[in-house]
Parts: sequence; C-alpha cells; structure tokens
Amino acid sequence: MNEHIVKSYEEELALLDKKIAQMGGLAEQLLGQSLSALERRDPKLAEEVVISDKAIDNLEREIEEQVISMIARRQPMANDLRHIMGALRITTDLERIGDLAKNIAKRALAIADESHPKPLMSGIRHMVELALHQLKEVLDAYAERDADKALAVWRHDAEIDAMYNSLFRELLTYMMEDPRNIGISTHLLFGAKNIERVGDHTTNIAETVHFLVRGFNIADDRPKDDQTSSTLIS
Amino acid sequence: MNEHIVKSYEEELALLDKKIAQMGGLAEQLLGQSLSALERRDPKLAEEVVISDKAIDNLEREIEEQVISMIARRQPMANDLRHIMGALRITTDLERIGDLAKNIAKRALAIADESHPKPLMSGIRHMVELALHQLKEVLDAYAERDADKALAVWRHDAEIDAMYNSLFRELLTYMMEDPRNIGISTHLLFGAKNIERVGDHTTNIAETVHFLVRGFNIADDRPKDDQTSSTLIS
Repeated sequence: MNEHIVKSYEEELALLDKKIAQMGGLAEQLLGQSLSALERRDPKLAEEVVISDKAIDNLEREIEEQVISMIARRQPMANDLRHIMGALRITTDLERIGDLAKNIAKRALAIADESHPKPLMSGIRHMVELALHQLKEVLDAYAERDADKALAVWRHDAEIDAMYNSLFRELLTYMMEDPRNIGISTHLLFGAKNIERVGDHTTNIAETVHFLVRGFNIADDRPKDDQTSSTLIS
Repeated sequence: MNEHIVKSYEEELALLDKKIAQMGGLAEQLLGQSLSALERRDPKLAEEVVISDKAIDNLEREIEEQVISMIARRQPMANDLRHIMGALRITTDLERIGDLAKNIAKRALAIADESHPKPLMSGIRHMVELALHQLKEVLDAYAERDADKALAVWRHDAEIDAMYNSLFRELLTYMMEDPRNIGISTHLLFGAKNIERVGDHTTNIAETVHFLVRGFNIADDRPKDDQTSSTLIS
C-alpha cells in the first residue's frame, strides 16, 4: 500500500498479472508435488506442500492489497475495473486450489505406510494430470487474454468429472470387496474429490477470463458436476 | 453501481451490513432446510435448497458491486477500508456456506429412498445444530461488532471438529460391518465433511470480525482441523 515510486497504470496492471502468474505457478507446483507425495509415499514431500501453501496465502494478501490500492487511487471504470476485479477473483480460486493440494498432501501423509491399490492410484494420477493440464491452459488463457482457450478449458472440465465419477464407483467396489480396504479407500475418495474441486476452480477461472475478454458470461449454467452426490444407491 | 440518490457514508455502510445480515439469514435457512430434507427424506425440500442457493449468489454479486463502488468513490482509509473489505470477505464465506448447504441437499436427494441408520443420522443432526448455532452467533458478533463473541465462536469450532472425527470413525465402522452399508455411509461421510467445512467458514468469519474490531488477528494459526485426513489406518 505504501508504494513511494509512482507507477503508470499499465505497469501496475502488469505487476498484478505477474503476481497472478507466480501464484498460478505455485499452485501447479503444489498440486504436482501432492501427487508425487501420494504415489511415492513420501511424507517429507507431503509436509513440504503443507508448508509451501503459506506462500500462496501470502501472495493472495499482497494481490488483495494492491487491488484495493488501485481501486482507491485510480477509480477505474469499465474495462479496467473488470480487469482488476477479475484478477482478484482468479486469486481467490488459486488460493483454494493451493488449499486443495494441501489437503491431498495431508491424505498422502495419512496413508504413507499403507500399500496403495495400483489401478485406483493410476486413476488418481490421470485425474491430477488432467487437472494440471487444465490449470496450465487456463493460466495461459489469462496471460494471453484468450477467450477461446478459456472456453476450451471450461468444456474439458466434464472429463475430470467423468473420471471422478468412474473412480468413485471403483473405490466403492473396492471397499465392498474387503472391509480392510475401507480405510484407504476413504482417504482416496476424499483425495479424488479434492481433485474434482480443483477442476471446478479452474472452470471458475476460465469463466472469469472469458468475461474479462468478451464482457459476457460463458453461460448462465456451467458444465461442472459431481454426479456421485446424486448417485442412487442400489 | 448507478446510484442516483446520494447516500451518506454511514448509510452506505448500514446498507452493506443489512445485505450481509440478509445473506447470513439465508445461509442459516438453507443449512437448516438441508438437514430437514435429509432427515425427512424430502426430495422436494432438497430441490428447493438447490434453487434458493442462487439468491445467495445474487446477494454476493450485489455486495461486491457496492464494495467496488464505495472504494472507488470514497477512497476509504484505515478503519473504513477495513470494514468494507471485511464485509467482502464475510460475503465470500457466506456464499461458500450456501454452496455447502446445497451439496448436503444434493446428498439428501440421492439417499431419499434409502433407510437411514438412526444413530449416525443423530450424529449428523448434532453437527448441523452446532454449526447453525455457531453461524448465528458469528452473525450476531458481526452485527454487534463484538470481538469477544467472535473469539468464543472461534474457540468452539473444535467441538464441531471433534464431532466430525467421531462420526467419521462410526461411519467407517458401519461400512465394515456390512458392505451394503457402504453406499449410504459414503454419502453421509461427504455430508458430514460439508458440515465440518461450514464450521471452518464460520471460523473464518469469526477471524474477520475479530480483526475488524480489534485491528489484529486472533492468532497466526487457527484451531480448525479435520483430523481424519491424518488418521492412520490400522
């Protein structure tokens, strides 16, 4: 807030974008590391993720302060205000993605000593890989102000949901096969749900980018859906 | 944003608080209704909750617009800025509580035709009742600018976490007893997790109120914890 060097408006916007790119890079890194911690059963790496999440929180606070200061000093209108508020919105989603990576790392810690069911782990890996790819794409879409790229990300979220729904069923089947599988399956279930939610936040960012570039919403309703919450039990 | 009637600053702040109270009341209502829908296996009520959540989203947007307009026009400093940003922060938490109530309602829809295990359902009921009480208290703390009340809410969140941890164990045991219990238990597990997260957002609001009144954070670290994510499986 106490910036003594007077910057131009464009410089301030560029600084905002730079911080968002930094935050996005960190979110990607934590998500990737939480998967590695899970797969390699590496409690040290998992603990690192939990600690590194604080850097994301700090960046969020910095961006928030800059946004307040910009609105107060510049009183931006229309396009500029849309840009600044979009940046703030994206920041909130990235902070939550960091939180979700932290949650996955905590699950990794909890089950580090357990043997992991291979086919289910590969399901988790595929979900994380797609979520990471989507996150990377949407950060590019923001950096390049590319509404079409944002729209593509938005559409692809359905794939993550489909993966989650199928993994959910597999995990339930695995539980039913042997009660001893219930503990680990529950942790993996929550882990998978966390990844599905990373996808939702990425979709939010895609919506923000689209609105920022085109000035209107992608759609009133969005494609995201965890169908397992409405799965009838038979 | 196009307010033609010029209001005093105090009137604008009062309007902001009024909208937050309205949003908070709605969040309480949806959470209560999602529990009723679950207990009475009432799919109609569950659907109502899903639809009503949109009213919370609309209020969030209204508040956000008012906040931007106030910062731009008034360029508030120190205390006033803290108040306005606090309001925005609380709004975000209330919006997420609305989302969580909606998720519980979706679970209620999914298991409306199942017979519900009574002791576990009463565990869920107690969690929701405490979460509702905490939410009511923190909204009062905000309306009255009562930092001590906020602190009390912050401290009591540990009780919701303890309830969740014990319910988590009971649900796992119930699953292990009979594979046919796995489906419904999984839905209840996610439902319980949603309530635990309502508690976390209520704790966030308590922190915001405390900061807003006293000007410093309750603590660097907060009491919330879902211990189940680090529960070792034996």
